[in-house]
Amino acid sequence: MPKSITFDRDKIMDVVVELFWKKGYNGTSMQDLVDATGLNRSSFYNTFVDKFTLFEASLTHYQQKQNQLIPTVNTFKSPKQAITSLFKGISKDIMNGDQKGCLLTNCTTELVKQEPRIKSFLQDNKNKIVNSFISLIQAAQENGEIDPEKDSQTLALYLFSSLQGLRVTSMIDTQLEGVTEEILRSI
Amino acid sequence: MPKSITFDRDKIMDVVVELFWKKGYNGTSMQDLVDATGLNRSSFYNTFVDKFTLFEASLTHYQQKQNQLIPTVNTFKSPKQAITSLFKGISKDIMNGDQKGCLLTNCTTELVKQEPRIKSFLQDNKNKIVNSFISLIQAAQENGEIDPEKDSQTLALYLFSSLQGLRVTSMIDTQLEGVTEEILRSI
Repeated sequence: MPKSITFDRDKIMDVVVELFWKKGYNGTSMQDLVDATGLNRSSFYNTFVDKFTLFEASLTHYQQKQNQLIPTVNTFKSPKQAITSLFKGISKDIMNGDQKGCLLTNCTTELVKQEPRIKSFLQDNKNKIVNSFISLIQAAQENGEIDPEKDSQTLALYLFSSLQGLRVTSMIDTQLEGVTEEILRSI
Repeated sequence: MPKSITFDRDKIMDVVVELFWKKGYNGTSMQDLVDATGLNRSSFYNTFVDKFTLFEASLTHYQQKQNQLIPTVNTFKSPKQAITSLFKGISKDIMNGDQKGCLLTNCTTELVKQEPRIKSFLQDNKNKIVNSFISLIQAAQENGEIDPEKDSQTLALYLFSSLQGLRVTSMIDTQLEGVTEEILRSI
């Protein structure tokens, strides 16, 4: 009877996400993954198939945790405040030394041109975030917090793009409170 | 007498830049570089030392060409128009299918956490671009095109961050004219 292998998949995925986030997909070797997780290669391949499959699983794992941070219309009394809090929270984290950027932003620049499946995942992720912003903006327009003449789709995509910009810039500059204020002037 | 090797360094660097831009630093193998440039390994190492040294040279080569696109105060009669033209040109290129992003943006997300020399290069590059924007904004404030109450340093860093955002988002969405208009509303 083969030796049974038990491990906490969620914890292993946290470790894997950290590694890909830090070193990128191509910069992470199988040995790095084996060393960081403590799994041997055999358990590794049995469970996660190969590095690419594991990477895709780690993107989903990360996305699930990250998207919990995107507020929904019901999270805050004020939908405009919900957007403001999200951006100010990120800016504060950056000021406090969070220079890791975003795994999905890093993944976009590293792999989109090479991997159609990753591109499709990232486009789907972008659409989800943009749709969350659209709901918040429209709710804020209905209650008079945001100018109803503004196009919610454009504004939502602008917020998404601004978030990417903040994430990249944070890796080389931590003083982005003024930039965040400027982004928020649009809403 | 050793066989003399002649090649056009500038053309070789163009090829190398394209390769690193498409595949990233870690995703580009020495074999990819040898295949793309037509140089043999021996000439390669004699000329470019190693992959990392070549990568650093390719960043400088790319930077020199890219920074020619950043307008100076004297390029346009209107400094505000100079900024507007830069952003609208990028947005138009994206709409026409330019989804390559920016080599320096890609490099930021891939290598900043691993390579202090690359981080330093990218911080220096950011400062150069931000300083160019500051000069343009201040000139536009002096001639009444931009509100003189606005902080030119903050606005310049905002434009830099917005440019990063546009470059990343363009890799998964080509309809960014509205986003560009929104960015330009800040000036």
